[in-house]
Amino acid sequence: MFDFKYYTPTKVILGRNTQERVAELIREFGGTKILIHYGGGSVVRSGLLKQVTDRLDADGISYVTLGGAVPNPRLSLVYEGIKLCKKEKVDFLLAVGGGSAIDSAKAIGYGVANEGDVWDFYSYKRTAKGCLPLGVILTLAATGSEMSDSSVITKEEGLIKRGYSSDFGRARFAILNPELTMTLPDYQTACGCTDIMMHTMERYFTNGGNMEITDSMAEALLRTVKKNALILYKDPKNYDARAEVMWAGSLSHNGLTGCGNDGGDWMTHKLEHELGGLYDVAHGAGLAAIWGSWARYVYKNCLHRFKRYAVNVMGITDEGNDEETALKGIEAMEDFYRSIGMPTNLRELGVNPTEEELRLMAKKCADGVGGEKGSARVLNEEAMLSIYRASM
Amino acid sequence: MFDFKYYTPTKVILGRNTQERVAELIREFGGTKILIHYGGGSVVRSGLLKQVTDRLDADGISYVTLGGAVPNPRLSLVYEGIKLCKKEKVDFLLAVGGGSAIDSAKAIGYGVANEGDVWDFYSYKRTAKGCLPLGVILTLAATGSEMSDSSVITKEEGLIKRGYSSDFGRARFAILNPELTMTLPDYQTACGCTDIMMHTMERYFTNGGNMEITDSMAEALLRTVKKNALILYKDPKNYDARAEVMWAGSLSHNGLTGCGNDGGDWMTHKLEHELGGLYDVAHGAGLAAIWGSWARYVYKNCLHRFKRYAVNVMGITDEGNDEETALKGIEAMEDFYRSIGMPTNLRELGVNPTEEELRLMAKKCADGVGGEKGSARVLNEEAMLSIYRASM
Repeated sequence: MFDFKYYTPTKVILGRNTQERVAELIREFGGTKILIHYGGGSVVRSGLLKQVTDRLDADGISYVTLGGAVPNPRLSLVYEGIKLCKKEKVDFLLAVGGGSAIDSAKAIGYGVANEGDVWDFYSYKRTAKGCLPLGVILTLAATGSEMSDSSVITKEEGLIKRGYSSDFGRARFAILNPELTMTLPDYQTACGCTDIMMHTMERYFTNGGNMEITDSMAEALLRTVKKNALILYKDPKNYDARAEVMWAGSLSHNGLTGCGNDGGDWMTHKLEHELGGLYDVAHGAGLAAIWGSWARYVYKNCLHRFKRYAVNVMGITDEGNDEETALKGIEAMEDFYRSIGMPTNLRELGVNPTEEELRLMAKKCADGVGGEKGSARVLNEEAMLSIYRASM
Repeated sequence: MFDFKYYTPTKVILGRNTQERVAELIREFGGTKILIHYGGGSVVRSGLLKQVTDRLDADGISYVTLGGAVPNPRLSLVYEGIKLCKKEKVDFLLAVGGGSAIDSAKAIGYGVANEGDVWDFYSYKRTAKGCLPLGVILTLAATGSEMSDSSVITKEEGLIKRGYSSDFGRARFAILNPELTMTLPDYQTACGCTDIMMHTMERYFTNGGNMEITDSMAEALLRTVKKNALILYKDPKNYDARAEVMWAGSLSHNGLTGCGNDGGDWMTHKLEHELGGLYDVAHGAGLAAIWGSWARYVYKNCLHRFKRYAVNVMGITDEGNDEETALKGIEAMEDFYRSIGMPTNLRELGVNPTEEELRLMAKKCADGVGGEKGSARVLNEEAMLSIYRASM
């Protein structure tokens, strides 16, 4: 067991119509001039943006808006947001949307609160000394960014996708109304469930420091998401299942499911980030497409964890030797992905990289992690290439 | 499923020697003049208090000290602390100890930050508008007060024990060094494990609003504490078991294991508070002595939960009808209490109230909850008396 810090200051409000409390929460956390940051037109079309601005108008809180955050959010929009915030003297950010809007808002917050180029943080050149305070109205359960310390931004030049983590970026509040996620396409719901499970799986498949309370709560979370993802695949308007998944999304990435371990493996995420940088695929689908190949490449080096996962999460009856049990667990996980419409290889994901592109992704991935990385098994560039090839 | 708020701003630092970070954490949260509040002589004898003051001296942070917080902490000491803080212009409280020191510090914090008599909050006459910021160095895993919003104070006149809950009272940081709990007597360790389990059990045995993710994580926590309480009963110096229990103590009472439900039952706590007020028994032991009688009185009204508990926490093989399974679970829990040296009735607890005293406790308990209360089953004064009688 390793020492750990657990810090989740975000005030979470979960329930129907909770977006109506936005002005009260902004006031509680000291916001007076707000940048409302959102993504595509869905929050406009659904009327949510108007609900929010009506609340702020009624409460006399002034604001500016900036839309356009896209999946794999872009650095250029972050620069635009920073400029706008400085010009308008914004002192509080409100992200309305999913991970793209939240991550983009965090990057804007770092850019306003620190001198110099915000990309420095994402390229590991400097650490941030602060961030504008942030609130969230979540419309998509997936990235866990509403409670996490992390954000991921893509630099257009070279399509470089990089993450940055800092407690300064943790949201002051997060409004979770499960009903706001009901209009998502089924594919996006399934992508979200995949991403949520992966945030805990990345922490679970490690070779160092595991705690029983962390593991058993992680397994509880994973079983819950799996069960409710299947419910939502058939019944997308099921409120309780939406709420279970939404809350699991926040808990899965706020640090709880990694307390006491070595920080996690995270290589499935790193491998997917290169896919996302090159092809703009949905993050959750990219993770599903890579995971099986990653798991088969590493499981023998982390057998006790893959066996435990098979038994405690996938419900494999513990017969045969540990390797057989572990492999059955991996197969069952891929079956689960397919059962909610997720791909289990790149072909099913709809991309068909050339050998040269596979090599390029492996090189960028290795460069991005400083050569090699991983806890279940340390991967170098050659290992990354092998996994990409196996995922074709 | 009910709407919920989840708010746990406390920065938790768990690991060996983490008390050495106390000055850095106080600075991070803005403290400049500190009241160090502690209990009996054990933090003096162990050298912990000197370690803390050495750190503050080295960092140039000024402080005053106030010892004497006892189990079931007293209102008179709270008044003394408030006076001292006002006189010395204290702006940050540091509790060094277990729940007694922390709860007493919270009450001092309310008293300093609000006009009027602090007992008003504990007698439900007013709500607090603030609290002095608080940090904790925990030496006993039990009450969860280091992350919770609650505190319990006893008024000497009439021996009235009452709790007050407010987010203002949540600690800014909590230093958890499992080694600091290793010198506890075995009885206190077992009392702590009982209290920790009860904080989640009070939330678990309800008839309203349960969420699957909350339930399954609660069961994971309960299994972990049960397992590690048995380890510590045989091997009190086991670091990993101490850490599992210590972290479980914080998670058990920070709100996590109640998200989505109706707020919990809490009647075992209320019934024990009257015992604690009259007899000054160890809180955990009092809970263990009452729980079985409470459970047998209410289980038929909350059968689905008692059955689930029996199967998922106590490992009862689900044979026979639901009532039989539920009763087996209650018996197994009492066996567990006995196996770690905890009482399962008042005689074993070492108290022998007269019928008149039982009636007095039932009356005070009913008065304290405004007549009747409970979620597994609503209890009035007569029901409370029946449970007290059954626990003899």
